[in-house]
Amino acid sequence: MIITEYVEGVRDNVRKARLSDRKIILIPTMGALHDGHLSMARLAKEGEEDVYIVMSIFVNPLQFGAGEDFAAYPRDLHRDAEMARREDVDLLFVPSAEEMYSPDSQTTVQVARLSQGLCGASRPGHFAGVATVVAKLLNIVQPDEAFFGQKDYQQFAVLRRMAEDLKLPVKLRLAPIVREPSGLALSSRNAYLSWEEKKDAAQIYAALLAAAERIREGERDAQAVAEFLRRFIETHAHGRVEYAEVRQKNDLQPVEAITKPVVLLVAVFVGRTRLIDNLIVEV
Amino acid sequence: MIITEYVEGVRDNVRKARLSDRKIILIPTMGALHDGHLSMARLAKEGEEDVYIVMSIFVNPLQFGAGEDFAAYPRDLHRDAEMARREDVDLLFVPSAEEMYSPDSQTTVQVARLSQGLCGASRPGHFAGVATVVAKLLNIVQPDEAFFGQKDYQQFAVLRRMAEDLKLPVKLRLAPIVREPSGLALSSRNAYLSWEEKKDAAQIYAALLAAAERIREGERDAQAVAEFLRRFIETHAHGRVEYAEVRQKNDLQPVEAITKPVVLLVAVFVGRTRLIDNLIVEV
Repeated sequence: MIITEYVEGVRDNVRKARLSDRKIILIPTMGALHDGHLSMARLAKEGEEDVYIVMSIFVNPLQFGAGEDFAAYPRDLHRDAEMARREDVDLLFVPSAEEMYSPDSQTTVQVARLSQGLCGASRPGHFAGVATVVAKLLNIVQPDEAFFGQKDYQQFAVLRRMAEDLKLPVKLRLAPIVREPSGLALSSRNAYLSWEEKKDAAQIYAALLAAAERIREGERDAQAVAEFLRRFIETHAHGRVEYAEVRQKNDLQPVEAITKPVVLLVAVFVGRTRLIDNLIVEV
Repeated sequence: MIITEYVEGVRDNVRKARLSDRKIILIPTMGALHDGHLSMARLAKEGEEDVYIVMSIFVNPLQFGAGEDFAAYPRDLHRDAEMARREDVDLLFVPSAEEMYSPDSQTTVQVARLSQGLCGASRPGHFAGVATVVAKLLNIVQPDEAFFGQKDYQQFAVLRRMAEDLKLPVKLRLAPIVREPSGLALSSRNAYLSWEEKKDAAQIYAALLAAAERIREGERDAQAVAEFLRRFIETHAHGRVEYAEVRQKNDLQPVEAITKPVVLLVAVFVGRTRLIDNLIVEV
């Protein structure tokens, strides 16, 4: 595995890989790797003869708001590199903030409607920060495919829209959420949770499953399902619910009557830690 | 010369050209071609063995404001195609608005500081519209180089910044302004001018030359030069000056004392037609 901090280092290595006809895959991460990230490397290799996997690790300052956990966000490059190496990642890109943002940098990519509501409501500028850094990474690597985790479902919707709108020649792929045996969705932020909080947090997935069961049993009122979800989390996860919503699966538009596939999305504070999770429900 | 309306048509043809090792050039235009556009095709071929020139013609609705001349903007594809063919353009891309903007399209590229002031002051959203459509075109064509005319100097500064910030693997090149014998900078909007107005409009270049002469004679007060420029245009071109400014050549920042290369920039209404022009002055 090659590790580089430089854009030119990425370009040189990707060029060589492309010359030997390998399919270029990008897996953008903020590090603090867990099995959710690593599952994407495995998924990228499934049924493929010759892929070249570029993983980026960059804690992107532009997507953190004031008072958020940019400084505290877990960083352990040594451990991350070892985990990436074991998954046969070919190239690990670990740029500095200066390599990604020159001092004169002033360009942002904004995805208007999909960035509003849900996480966008409490994190203004977050998705512009994400879209901007992912546009840069896609332009640096120019991959055939890029993988994103379903846990950040709104993020995926924003980025898929961005790639289509900007005519980026890349296929974005969604990797399923990886969960602990308790049901808790893997997240680098789980490191903030105490043992007690982890037990509470596991009830978020239980709430999603219970709400999905209500839909399968015939409930078609999205508002009723959202209310059920919120109350379940408040009762069992002892969390402060930032949002609990039912949205259209494809475009994240609000839903009144559930007639097409939906996604249940939640953001919950368990103690001081903000967690998100979601579940797609086909009807 | 191949003409296509489709993104996929561009990609297929560019792919073939790249396989035969040709350097890919993009010349984005809004059509109503004149020698300013055509000079870029010639410039692209200078000293090059094997270039593949893609010219796009697209009157981009996103960069026109309410009350501007989007509907009236001159369009003559038949004439444009003939002119492009004569300059050995290889591929002419003439997309529909639907091909460039899907109904769900909601992504914009914003270049913050460089888009403010000058033309950005009277045309809010204009440079976001330009940056967005050029980002799309660059992603569709993926050229080695893209050419832009110096007449739209602020546009070039915005786009160069965008390409650097978004890490687009392309070199942007600036083509000198082409002028009529009278000095009037070629522009598709010159078609709006009456014969009398054309005579007045030619005085804009005279004003730029006279102001540059003042700098060469030793004037270092940018404000005095700007005032001279404004009064010259008001007196000789009988125009309403929207702005007349002296800015740093490299980053378009305002100037007090002229100690480094500057650019003189003006926007002038001659009758009802808004014209822009500029002149770089090395000191």
